[in-house]
Amino acid sequence: MSNAVEQIIAHYAGENPGVIGKLRRLLHTGTLAGTGKLVILPVDQGFEHGPARSFAPNPAGYDPEYHVNLAIEAGCNAYAAPLGFIEAVAHKYAGRIPFILKVNNSDSLGGPDQPCSALTSGVRDALRLGASAIGYTIYPGSGLRNEQYQGIRDLIAQAREVGLPTVLWSYPRGAGISKNGETALDVVAYAAHIACQLGAHIVKVKPPTDFIEQKEAQKSYLEVPKSTLAERIQHVVQSSFNGKRIVIFSGGAAKGSDEVLEELRQIAKGGGFGSIMGRNAFQRSPRDGKKLLQDAMAIFRG
Amino acid sequence: MSNAVEQIIAHYAGENPGVIGKLRRLLHTGTLAGTGKLVILPVDQGFEHGPARSFAPNPAGYDPEYHVNLAIEAGCNAYAAPLGFIEAVAHKYAGRIPFILKVNNSDSLGGPDQPCSALTSGVRDALRLGASAIGYTIYPGSGLRNEQYQGIRDLIAQAREVGLPTVLWSYPRGAGISKNGETALDVVAYAAHIACQLGAHIVKVKPPTDFIEQKEAQKSYLEVPKSTLAERIQHVVQSSFNGKRIVIFSGGAAKGSDEVLEELRQIAKGGGFGSIMGRNAFQRSPRDGKKLLQDAMAIFRG
Amino acid sequence: MSNAVEQIIAHYAGENPGVIGKLRRLLHTGTLAGTGKLVILPVDQGFEHGPARSFAPNPAGYDPEYHVNLAIEAGCNAYAAPLGFIEAVAHKYAGRIPFILKVNNSDSLGGPDQPCSALTSGVRDALRLGASAIGYTIYPGSGLRNEQYQGIRDLIAQAREVGLPTVLWSYPRGAGISKNGETALDVVAYAAHIACQLGAHIVKVKPPTDFIEQKEAQKSYLEVPKSTLAERIQHVVQSSFNGKRIVIFSGGAAKGSDEVLEELRQIAKGGGFGSIMGRNAFQRSPRDGKKLLQDAMAIFRG
Amino acid sequence: MSNAVEQIIAHYAGENPGVIGKLRRLLHTGTLAGTGKLVILPVDQGFEHGPARSFAPNPAGYDPEYHVNLAIEAGCNAYAAPLGFIEAVAHKYAGRIPFILKVNNSDSLGGPDQPCSALTSGVRDALRLGASAIGYTIYPGSGLRNEQYQGIRDLIAQAREVGLPTVLWSYPRGAGISKNGETALDVVAYAAHIACQLGAHIVKVKPPTDFIEQKEAQKSYLEVPKSTLAERIQHVVQSSFNGKRIVIFSGGAAKGSDEVLEELRQIAKGGGFGSIMGRNAFQRSPRDGKKLLQDAMAIFRG
Amino acid sequence: MSNAVEQIIAHYAGENPGVIGKLRRLLHTGTLAGTGKLVILPVDQGFEHGPARSFAPNPAGYDPEYHVNLAIEAGCNAYAAPLGFIEAVAHKYAGRIPFILKVNNSDSLGGPDQPCSALTSGVRDALRLGASAIGYTIYPGSGLRNEQYQGIRDLIAQAREVGLPTVLWSYPRGAGISKNGETALDVVAYAAHIACQLGAHIVKVKPPTDFIEQKEAQKSYLEVPKSTLAERIQHVVQSSFNGKRIVIFSGGAAKGSDEVLEELRQIAKGGGFGSIMGRNAFQRSPRDGKKLLQDAMAIFRG
Repeated sequence: MSNAVEQIIAHYAGENPGVIGKLRRLLHTGTLAGTGKLVILPVDQGFEHGPARSFAPNPAGYDPEYHVNLAIEAGCNAYAAPLGFIEAVAHKYAGRIPFILKVNNSDSLGGPDQPCSALTSGVRDALRLGASAIGYTIYPGSGLRNEQYQGIRDLIAQAREVGLPTVLWSYPRGAGISKNGETALDVVAYAAHIACQLGAHIVKVKPPTDFIEQKEAQKSYLEVPKSTLAERIQHVVQSSFNGKRIVIFSGGAAKGSDEVLEELRQIAKGGGFGSIMGRNAFQRSPRDGKKLLQDAMAIFRG
Repeated sequence: MSNAVEQIIAHYAGENPGVIGKLRRLLHTGTLAGTGKLVILPVDQGFEHGPARSFAPNPAGYDPEYHVNLAIEAGCNAYAAPLGFIEAVAHKYAGRIPFILKVNNSDSLGGPDQPCSALTSGVRDALRLGASAIGYTIYPGSGLRNEQYQGIRDLIAQAREVGLPTVLWSYPRGAGISKNGETALDVVAYAAHIACQLGAHIVKVKPPTDFIEQKEAQKSYLEVPKSTLAERIQHVVQSSFNGKRIVIFSGGAAKGSDEVLEELRQIAKGGGFGSIMGRNAFQRSPRDGKKLLQDAMAIFRG
Repeated sequence: MSNAVEQIIAHYAGENPGVIGKLRRLLHTGTLAGTGKLVILPVDQGFEHGPARSFAPNPAGYDPEYHVNLAIEAGCNAYAAPLGFIEAVAHKYAGRIPFILKVNNSDSLGGPDQPCSALTSGVRDALRLGASAIGYTIYPGSGLRNEQYQGIRDLIAQAREVGLPTVLWSYPRGAGISKNGETALDVVAYAAHIACQLGAHIVKVKPPTDFIEQKEAQKSYLEVPKSTLAERIQHVVQSSFNGKRIVIFSGGAAKGSDEVLEELRQIAKGGGFGSIMGRNAFQRSPRDGKKLLQDAMAIFRG
Repeated sequence: MSNAVEQIIAHYAGENPGVIGKLRRLLHTGTLAGTGKLVILPVDQGFEHGPARSFAPNPAGYDPEYHVNLAIEAGCNAYAAPLGFIEAVAHKYAGRIPFILKVNNSDSLGGPDQPCSALTSGVRDALRLGASAIGYTIYPGSGLRNEQYQGIRDLIAQAREVGLPTVLWSYPRGAGISKNGETALDVVAYAAHIACQLGAHIVKVKPPTDFIEQKEAQKSYLEVPKSTLAERIQHVVQSSFNGKRIVIFSGGAAKGSDEVLEELRQIAKGGGFGSIMGRNAFQRSPRDGKKLLQDAMAIFRG
Repeated sequence: MSNAVEQIIAHYAGENPGVIGKLRRLLHTGTLAGTGKLVILPVDQGFEHGPARSFAPNPAGYDPEYHVNLAIEAGCNAYAAPLGFIEAVAHKYAGRIPFILKVNNSDSLGGPDQPCSALTSGVRDALRLGASAIGYTIYPGSGLRNEQYQGIRDLIAQAREVGLPTVLWSYPRGAGISKNGETALDVVAYAAHIACQLGAHIVKVKPPTDFIEQKEAQKSYLEVPKSTLAERIQHVVQSSFNGKRIVIFSGGAAKGSDEVLEELRQIAKGGGFGSIMGRNAFQRSPRDGKKLLQDAMAIFRG
């Protein structure tokens, strides 16, 4: 029994044992087992950006088996992917690492006028494939916000009924938000708060920049410390029910290892619960990708 | 047995015992128990306006536990909040104060062209969390009016089946209403009447101003007394089935205590059934917020 | 057993006994019982036009109990109202007068671009409240026609299953119809015919004017007598399956008693089955309103 | 046992006995019983064009009983009409002539921007009223094509389950088709083919003109004989699974008897399975209407 | 037991025995049985382009029986067609060749603003008609992408439940894609990848050209060999889970036999799993069409 884990789990009291059990499983897997921290490998970029943009830098990644193997060997807490990638490996890897089935996805070929991912799988698929959680993306700021919030409302309820927690990707985007605003501190904190209010068990947002998007919010931020990333992370964690919900941060586009690791140190320092790192891991060579994931875990273990 | 309460309850004859029982519970809780009056603490501003704009003035409010505690300690009749805030505290506080689960919400990052909140929880959540009522916002005047009226129609029916009453936030807003018109006397009275016709058990509107929005209505208001807030409140109560439905009034943005209390006196004088006061309570220090709520109750107790 | 009633009922042969029974009940209630004629009191104007515009002329009308009492005392065949107004009185008045639950409603604050009422109650509510029929408004001519026709199709089927007949308010309105066209003879006759084809048991239209809206229809009206209201009523009755469906006529905005009564005489002379009269009744003083309803009944009794 | 009928029925092998039985019933009713040909009386013009435009020329037609009588007396294979008209006569005429319940309808007062009929009845109504088939209109070429194709897909499946065949009115219309194109040979043949692919048992189209609408199709028609109506009918029959589906042709607006009969001769010569003739029948005097229908049958009997 | 087939089937481990069994059946039918390669005859062009454009070059094709016969005699693995064409032959040919029921279709007369096929049949039809798989078209790049992805998500789940695999036609098309881009290498590879991620068992795309559509993707293609069709096919196969999903290629509009066969050689050389060839087969004379299909099979047998 890990104190670090049980302190987190205590904030989910009231959840049913099935959901609690899967949260414990995520927190008790891999190198970071028992620390209360998570490093997750997500591979939905083939769907989101296309296969060549995702896998040409390291063509081994065209094969769905590559990624689940990488996640296991590096010691990740979980592996997250869309339906097809999970279906291609589940029979062989179920039980060896928790799967997070990403149940909605966007491609970059076209779509509705306002950002909204398509439902591509569901809770029954998650059960059938032995997944430990479902994942879903909302775009706060989108004109199709209502469809997405109502969609996740229904999915969280269905997942709960079968004992599965929900991981919510909360990415502000849409008509009323500037490009810089998508990672603005106020907007990211707001997006994390919304995800918590919607009932997400784990929230994933982008690391916030030192920028305030909404005029009405500027006054409120006058006294919020925000010059370092660690401080901004802290504000996002605070906005997530004062740290009572697990918030993890994504890594974004591939970049140099030093830069990646420095960002992770700030996330850890600010009280972030971990990182979800895709392209920075699988677009490197197998050895380098694995090493970067392990370095990340070392940072979160502290 | 309270005469004041039973006189109100008598107007809901025909409702099933489950719903009646929960209404009695709301009216028999806290400092105002048995008076037929209500002061409710609502905390959905994190969702509606963002966490920093809501909680930076009193950072204790980032923690969901702060608010339910404040409501209990101040002696409120109920605590209203979205799914996440209720989920975070229900296991510990269920049974100690009635919860009103706010089942739809808007954020201020984006959304549909015409005002319409997203469904974020439901009747089954209310049951699961031990709530005593559901809350829902309609925006009369919106081009998406039909979706909202039909939505609440279905929710009221579902809630009734499991013995839960419904609190309706009726906030006029949308294409055909001017900014001033949103709190115009004719519009607020109309919004309250619509909520009653839709079957709401408790209606929440904003205090009306001395302004008539609709040209077609101006003649009808020639002889309606409306120069004081108390008179306008009286007209809204009259428009709510001649006082046979519970109508409470929201407080709006934070302001000076004197101003708040004077408004409450007018509401009480006009026959309003109570107040639902959020930012004016939780954006003050714990001591000041609690005091203001208690002063409000003192006014309604008379 | 009334011959006048049974001659009407014979045209509904094939309907199930539940529906037939409720139709008999409507035709065997009040002053006009057994005559085959109907005078109904509808009070949905609070919802449709706002409370002050509806009830300020006679403030007793703010109270839902006022109207059902007026209908009973005047000897009406039925009382029609939206959910809230029926809920407020059903426990006390169910069984004393047939209720028609108006299951959809519009307000005049805003709404969709093309006319379409919101669903505000349903067949289960009608059962729960002891209603004898449901009422529904369609707007032929609206761009949202399909939603409305399909909606009433489903509701008629549901209502029939539990033995309830349907009253259809058929009010032409929308993009392709001029303001004058809304009461044009061709359009009103067409609207009545559509309502009959949709399966309505009782059709409510406005008294038609001596105007032909549709160019394509003008030739067809060359030999249709239409200079008196009685003749136009006769054409509408003919267009309603040659008089085999009950068609009643609404009174419109309040006006002088002589004018109202002259209109009713023409309706009666033209073979109309009765009148549905709201504002002209409840916006008068209790005594005058009751008297006007009784005068109307005297006309239809002949 | 009729060889002509059984040869047609053989092309529906695989259908369930219920559907086959109703098809046999349609082909074994009236004057043309056993010939494999059909003349059907449809009366939905009151709904589609309005009552006066439909029935003023022969006011007996305002009465729903007139038409079913005409169909029986003239010896038609079936009588097709919307819900209301069938409900008004079903109790008296069920079993005396097959009814085709037209389950969707348009009026000419208004509607969606792209052509799409409203659902006005359904398969359960067809069963309840003793109908032998359902009828449905699609508008190939409409921007709302998908809603219509998906709608009829579901209805055909429901109807089949209870042993009812489906008659599909396939009328090209909409944004991309010129007025002349609506009856162009390529477009009518295409519309008939689509109806067959959608699973219709009987297809109804308009007689095609000697015009090719689609540029891409012109080359394909260089060698298709098309100068006479009979040749064009033959091409439509060929396009309907090489004559393996029953295709009948509508008569359109009222015109002179000689013109009507010449058109029917061409339809018969081209291998058409029959005619569905409304206004040309019921807008004539009872005697003339009946005679024209009988003359039509004489042509198809050959 | 065929090694070639079992190596393919191994990549579908985790699927239920029903689906696996049908995949084996497709791979063990016809001339290519046991080779792991497929040649399929699809005939939905009557629906998609109209009957004359499809069948005038070889009028025998107006008859639905022609095509299923051609598929059987030529030794195809399967025959794919819309509902009507399958219904017309299923009773006679079920069990003689696997049917793929194409459950959605577009016509070229009109439709929604963004490409989206209409649902025209379903899984229950597939069962009723003895089909071995369902087929569905998605248009990546369409503004209605979400509807289509969610639609196929549901259909795949339904089909799986009754042991039927799904063939996905993935044809990029829509607002953001240029005409040339529809067959661009990056876009076709992306479309194939999306289809795999959506859970398709067999993916059908068009042979890609040597063109890169998306600016963001150009860098990724600098080192991808792509000058020959075989190389491009290889990239598409790689993008389809590194060859772990069956990808077949369509032939497009009719052209000279030499050209067709050269294209097939390249597809085979690049590792494509086969071809789905319609117009090139059925628009030739029966003898030539059969010969071309057999020549195609000879190429894939190698």
